[in-house]
Amino acid sequence: MSWVLPVIADFDSDAAEAALAHQRQLTKPAGSLGRLEELATWYAGVRGGFPVAVPARAELFVFAADHGVVSEAVSAYPSEVTGAMVANFRNGGAAVNVLARQCGVEVTVVDVGVGIGASVEVVSTGATPVRYVEAVVRRGTRNLRHQAALSRTEAEQAIAVGVRMASEAVERGADILVGGEMGIGNTTAAAALLCAFTGDDPADVVGRGTGIDDAACVRKAAVIREGLATQNLNPRDPLGVLAGVGGLEIAALAGLMLGGAARRRPVIVDGFIAGAAALVATRLAPGARPFLLLSHLSAERGARRMCGLLGGAAPLLEFEMRLGEGTGAVLVVPLLRAAVALQSQMATFASAAVPQRG
Amino acid sequence: MSWVLPVIADFDSDAAEAALAHQRQLTKPAGSLGRLEELATWYAGVRGGFPVAVPARAELFVFAADHGVVSEAVSAYPSEVTGAMVANFRNGGAAVNVLARQCGVEVTVVDVGVGIGASVEVVSTGATPVRYVEAVVRRGTRNLRHQAALSRTEAEQAIAVGVRMASEAVERGADILVGGEMGIGNTTAAAALLCAFTGDDPADVVGRGTGIDDAACVRKAAVIREGLATQNLNPRDPLGVLAGVGGLEIAALAGLMLGGAARRRPVIVDGFIAGAAALVATRLAPGARPFLLLSHLSAERGARRMCGLLGGAAPLLEFEMRLGEGTGAVLVVPLLRAAVALQSQMATFASAAVPQRG
Repeated sequence: MSWVLPVIADFDSDAAEAALAHQRQLTKPAGSLGRLEELATWYAGVRGGFPVAVPARAELFVFAADHGVVSEAVSAYPSEVTGAMVANFRNGGAAVNVLARQCGVEVTVVDVGVGIGASVEVVSTGATPVRYVEAVVRRGTRNLRHQAALSRTEAEQAIAVGVRMASEAVERGADILVGGEMGIGNTTAAAALLCAFTGDDPADVVGRGTGIDDAACVRKAAVIREGLATQNLNPRDPLGVLAGVGGLEIAALAGLMLGGAARRRPVIVDGFIAGAAALVATRLAPGARPFLLLSHLSAERGARRMCGLLGGAAPLLEFEMRLGEGTGAVLVVPLLRAAVALQSQMATFASAAVPQRG
Repeated sequence: MSWVLPVIADFDSDAAEAALAHQRQLTKPAGSLGRLEELATWYAGVRGGFPVAVPARAELFVFAADHGVVSEAVSAYPSEVTGAMVANFRNGGAAVNVLARQCGVEVTVVDVGVGIGASVEVVSTGATPVRYVEAVVRRGTRNLRHQAALSRTEAEQAIAVGVRMASEAVERGADILVGGEMGIGNTTAAAALLCAFTGDDPADVVGRGTGIDDAACVRKAAVIREGLATQNLNPRDPLGVLAGVGGLEIAALAGLMLGGAARRRPVIVDGFIAGAAALVATRLAPGARPFLLLSHLSAERGARRMCGLLGGAAPLLEFEMRLGEGTGAVLVVPLLRAAVALQSQMATFASAAVPQRG
């Protein structure tokens, strides 16, 4: 691999252990805060120390790119929507903008390969500045049905964009990284990645994406099946799999995860597409897995299978969301902050003079 | 009933319908925000209009009281802990204080019947003011094993405290009401209420509460079974059931729910004990149900049964929490705000010039 993988940090089990011991002193029955306790001890292990400050700055990156496979009519929306939504993100009008404002998360939109620029005017809104980065690797992938979506070099370049975003965020002081995406056609790429790694039949994992009907689902599965048969990818070669059937935004998301894991920052994973990126990241570097937090179980059909492949703790939320953009992941930021605040700000039985168990 | 039930408002289905129609115009595939869309349309119906402002002010009431049944050794902690925790709440050191700060929720602690005052000094902390209300109906309930825990009049008085708290909060401008409780022994009272209404065997619903062992669980079930046999309560007489085996904090919580429903405010229901209060409230006034939001599925054993009895939408979170205090309910406040913000702040397909489905 010509591109150099960042050096992944070690999850600090001692720090997590120290956090857990402290949890037992707090004024509550042991374990009664359930997954919030889990989150707080995990965060100490990620950051590599205890006590640990309540995470303040959280940064979301929405990577956007187009997909050649859209020419196979696998999506309910045309590719133009990707560019139009990039403009919508920049104007602060998309779902994830609203959620990011509510949850105290900064937004950066990264064009890694939007095929058709938006004809929509971007109106700079002073109230909700959205950072915008142009880092186009190529303007959309090739059609995975007939050929590799990306060259290995292009896949590496897109990963490198994500790694760079993570580094720059950490330099700005980010405590939490959040990954989002926009790309018409990318549930097809995500399902194809899953199948390429596992050998699953596409018919078992493809879902409705933005809302396709039964006939389009059958077509979507057939397109993936044909692409995998033609390309004959090696599941032990994650970069080859990514190049073969992945997407530029998926590669960049994987890079963000690797970059976060290198810099001891938690990376919050959104739904099905971010899950596919997590699969790529953890096949490239299994040591990155402890730095990833699964935020929600998407309503997309293959989501449960994807989470199972990623292992570790189950997703925190199950809200039947299937929008992407990072919407589910952003919702988890206040929960993570709250969990760490509980750990660091609650009174102990001793400090509050609360009697212990009888 | 000598105490006058507040007049419950009607849930406004037209407002909810208008909100749903607006959701379909927003820049996302229809339905792709799942439970967040549900929450936003529900909130419009509760408030009785559309468009509706993003809820700002949220108020939590932690009702505290003691339980005579603790003399039967049904809890892992002594009754003194109730008063000590009230001091802890007033000093801002309990779990729910930390969560309320993180989630932008005001806290009022209401003593409706703490038996043993805390010997702990209350240090006023200017940074995190906690309102404190003394509204003691009686200093702890009688032992439900042998007699009615409360007289009907006492139960009514405690309900009235909750109704009054709801009214005062609404006068202060509260958009959201949240109910919490503290009372050593109150999982016993909550399980007894469930069984009194349903005829369930206590052995099937009692849980570990603050962390009792198997032997104590058996004892807890036997105490409830004996109390129900002795008192022979009529499940069609919710006030009688509440007086027989309930608690002062449970009665006040039920009152908060009724008061919220009367004033068109959503009331967020916490876990197992708040669920029992919701059972009482909705048996007294079934029209109150649409104003209640189940926040989380508690890890307490009877919680799933309780939620099933309450009907309606499933709890939003499943975090294996079992602390009470309102901790699970407070976590939902930012999610409800976010849901309504999405509805009111997202761009429409038309305003953002995003192409519709192909």
